[in-house]
Amino acid sequence: MSEAKSARRHPFRSLLGLSVRRWCAPVLGMPALAPAEEYLWRRAELGWHEVSKQLLTAAGVRHWFVDTGYVPGPVTSPSGLAELGGGTGHEVVRIEAVAEAVQKTATSPEGLLDKIKAALYVAPAIAFKSIVAYRWGLALPAVQPARAEAVRAATSWLRAKDSPLTDPVLLAWVVHEAARVGADRGLPLQIHTGFGDPDLRLSSSDPDLLTDFLRGAPCQVVLLHCYPFHRNAAYLAHVFDHVHVDLGLTIPFVGVRSAAVLAEVLELAPFDSVLYSSDGNVLPELHYLGAVLWRRAVNALTDAWLAEDALTTADAERLALGILGGNAMRLHRVTP
Amino acid sequence: MSEAKSARRHPFRSLLGLSVRRWCAPVLGMPALAPAEEYLWRRAELGWHEVSKQLLTAAGVRHWFVDTGYVPGPVTSPSGLAELGGGTGHEVVRIEAVAEAVQKTATSPEGLLDKIKAALYVAPAIAFKSIVAYRWGLALPAVQPARAEAVRAATSWLRAKDSPLTDPVLLAWVVHEAARVGADRGLPLQIHTGFGDPDLRLSSSDPDLLTDFLRGAPCQVVLLHCYPFHRNAAYLAHVFDHVHVDLGLTIPFVGVRSAAVLAEVLELAPFDSVLYSSDGNVLPELHYLGAVLWRRAVNALTDAWLAEDALTTADAERLALGILGGNAMRLHRVTP
Amino acid sequence: MSEAKSARRHPFRSLLGLSVRRWCAPVLGMPALAPAEEYLWRRAELGWHEVSKQLLTAAGVRHWFVDTGYVPGPVTSPSGLAELGGGTGHEVVRIEAVAEAVQKTATSPEGLLDKIKAALYVAPAIAFKSIVAYRWGLALPAVQPARAEAVRAATSWLRAKDSPLTDPVLLAWVVHEAARVGADRGLPLQIHTGFGDPDLRLSSSDPDLLTDFLRGAPCQVVLLHCYPFHRNAAYLAHVFDHVHVDLGLTIPFVGVRSAAVLAEVLELAPFDSVLYSSDGNVLPELHYLGAVLWRRAVNALTDAWLAEDALTTADAERLALGILGGNAMRLHRVTP
Repeated sequence: MSEAKSARRHPFRSLLGLSVRRWCAPVLGMPALAPAEEYLWRRAELGWHEVSKQLLTAAGVRHWFVDTGYVPGPVTSPSGLAELGGGTGHEVVRIEAVAEAVQKTATSPEGLLDKIKAALYVAPAIAFKSIVAYRWGLALPAVQPARAEAVRAATSWLRAKDSPLTDPVLLAWVVHEAARVGADRGLPLQIHTGFGDPDLRLSSSDPDLLTDFLRGAPCQVVLLHCYPFHRNAAYLAHVFDHVHVDLGLTIPFVGVRSAAVLAEVLELAPFDSVLYSSDGNVLPELHYLGAVLWRRAVNALTDAWLAEDALTTADAERLALGILGGNAMRLHRVTP
Repeated sequence: MSEAKSARRHPFRSLLGLSVRRWCAPVLGMPALAPAEEYLWRRAELGWHEVSKQLLTAAGVRHWFVDTGYVPGPVTSPSGLAELGGGTGHEVVRIEAVAEAVQKTATSPEGLLDKIKAALYVAPAIAFKSIVAYRWGLALPAVQPARAEAVRAATSWLRAKDSPLTDPVLLAWVVHEAARVGADRGLPLQIHTGFGDPDLRLSSSDPDLLTDFLRGAPCQVVLLHCYPFHRNAAYLAHVFDHVHVDLGLTIPFVGVRSAAVLAEVLELAPFDSVLYSSDGNVLPELHYLGAVLWRRAVNALTDAWLAEDALTTADAERLALGILGGNAMRLHRVTP
Repeated sequence: MSEAKSARRHPFRSLLGLSVRRWCAPVLGMPALAPAEEYLWRRAELGWHEVSKQLLTAAGVRHWFVDTGYVPGPVTSPSGLAELGGGTGHEVVRIEAVAEAVQKTATSPEGLLDKIKAALYVAPAIAFKSIVAYRWGLALPAVQPARAEAVRAATSWLRAKDSPLTDPVLLAWVVHEAARVGADRGLPLQIHTGFGDPDLRLSSSDPDLLTDFLRGAPCQVVLLHCYPFHRNAAYLAHVFDHVHVDLGLTIPFVGVRSAAVLAEVLELAPFDSVLYSSDGNVLPELHYLGAVLWRRAVNALTDAWLAEDALTTADAERLALGILGGNAMRLHRVTP
């Protein structure tokens, strides 16, 4: 690989970088838009614990829904976050991680399937989450693969202990199983769609690929992130009453463009289907930016629409309270 | 299905709902943005005939182009609409409905094909319309399937009397036939693209899939609705002089975002290729909203562009008159 | 083809047409927004040489990067452009044209492959460019086709002397070869993506199709044009440090919408990855519009973001200088 190719870009020269300097710097005691170098210096000076505490507290989040399948550790546990930022922690259980944990000890394919089901029933979850977009893509079949097919796939998987779950038949079986258990337990199923880490192929993450699955899904479904397919996601929320749209990850990254992107979602998405989240991970900055930028986006849109007489102040307030927390709390059955 | 899943969303909590309260309420004698419950109560009080009359008249439409294949009935007939709203009614003939009507009485596959062609020649149409996006998708072949293939497909279809036309070979044959008859008769072919009812798969309705068909199409073609693929549709109107773009259905639904969506279309679409329509159906509100919101969108854009010196007032007027009626009238050969 | 179908649209009734009248007319001594007929009359009066000279000079471009594979002739040669417009000319070498030139004289498939490689090593290029989107589409394989496969494809191609290069195996072999030679020589590989001439199929030109190729590409890659897939292109520049985005062609065409489209790119694209270019071809107007509209777009965005306190004036200046020339000069190793 040539030297030129391996040159890394300056991580602050992007809308995300500007947002960090604009919004996070004051929380850490610097002027807004302090230079990147000063920000990093100050961050190191304070230490991760203090930085996390200040940024998470400033987010003003009362309920942390945390996917525990990503980077296990003290900071990302729901209770750890709640301890740092205040409020209550809730666990979002990644179903592929459940299956992979079970695989380590399963001794037969039938046992593997049964134990996955049992583990989904007892997982201490406020919601399930699937990252099948990373493993295979979102073109899930309309109906669950037959047991015999799943057993065949499980037999292969068991031969390679500790390997990640990538078989499409088994992934489809697990997602359908989680949807059924979720319906039974009253838990929504969150599905990663749209952009993310570099190992994802964008075209495999278009939520439109979920259409067949969504038609038959027995549980509530949340389409996470969605960008740049957020209009497709909004369409799905428009035609299916059990589909919801979350722009976590998107809003912190697009920064000053948050209102523009949210406006595109609201073109078709019912107001009650849109959910705030930050998708904060690794960096506490993302949690704080999510909170600030979502609020600013919702306020910018409702202000502009009020100026056009497109809605009343009562409408605006209901819309804001719903998107900024009420919709997610109702869907996940959290009491205020 | 769980109780949660079957919960219906409040139909007014969307940009469409806000537009109904903002624009239709005053027509029916209420204040702008009257609460949804009052709107529904008032609507019931007035009765469908009076509501339709007031909203359709307020639309100020002089020529109603009505697709008679959707919900047959007194309100949706072209003359019925014209009687309620003033002006003149014109019939848009749905070609799949023509084929299905002929199938009921056809006795041989050859006869079926010949009768479809004959029916297209005599149909009292101002335009043809295809909903092949709902039946198979828009990936039509570049050339018409051979007669022998069509006969084979017709043979199968005739065995199931009164079944809808879903065979891809026969659908392609019918669309190509309508394009040829349309060219002969000087009738445009309107094609549903983009979003619509829940039985549609979004990715099968991308107008880009029509590229091969459009290259060889002998008639004028109107891409209807288009959202969220409206930029793709605009590109097709940009490269093909016989392709036009209509944002009916889209504009009423996206409400306060109408100008934003129309602006995206005008990035590439020639000004003379963009056609106003409401795609009003079932609810007279949609007809009125189409009329109001298209006008507001065009005015908002031309005002903003005039403020930037991007065009002259004469340019703005020609653009507005074209999009808001002139382009559609010229294309459909309606005299003012 | 019916008379109606063959009717050509008025070329000035589009955002591009408005921009020509708005920005090019004053350069040629007319008032802004002079009528199209007067513009064309004045253009004819001045003659192509004078028109080109005035518009190219007004563009204020110091380094002309010119793809010499499109329309060979005096105006489009890099030195010809530089003579007319001032500054220095640099050649962008179209790799399919290189292969086709070699094919005319090659006598064996092995010789053809070797000579293509040799020609790429000696071509007087500041960058390579591929138009594989027009020939096959962008779904390139992750690794170069094996030599034996390429030899087989070359054998077939040699049988049809002077035919264009359309074989997918050979196209993929040539693009991978150019990437390797480009890495060796320090030359970026520019790839046409998104819209263009009517012989292109939009869906085959989505830069997302390049994902596998980009993962392994050893050289810097510039995604050209990108529209309407510019958000996909920006995503690729976001995840791959060696991928850059150029909105040439797009910006001149979308005119008054330039800032809106550029804003969508900047949602994810790192600021250092976005490159100004005009993609001017045939018409000198496109060069001038590129220069004017890119500057206006960047200024409009930075002004709006400054008003929101989203960045400092120093940030705005660096962003503008980078996008409007610095990023392209650094990438192509041109000294100011």
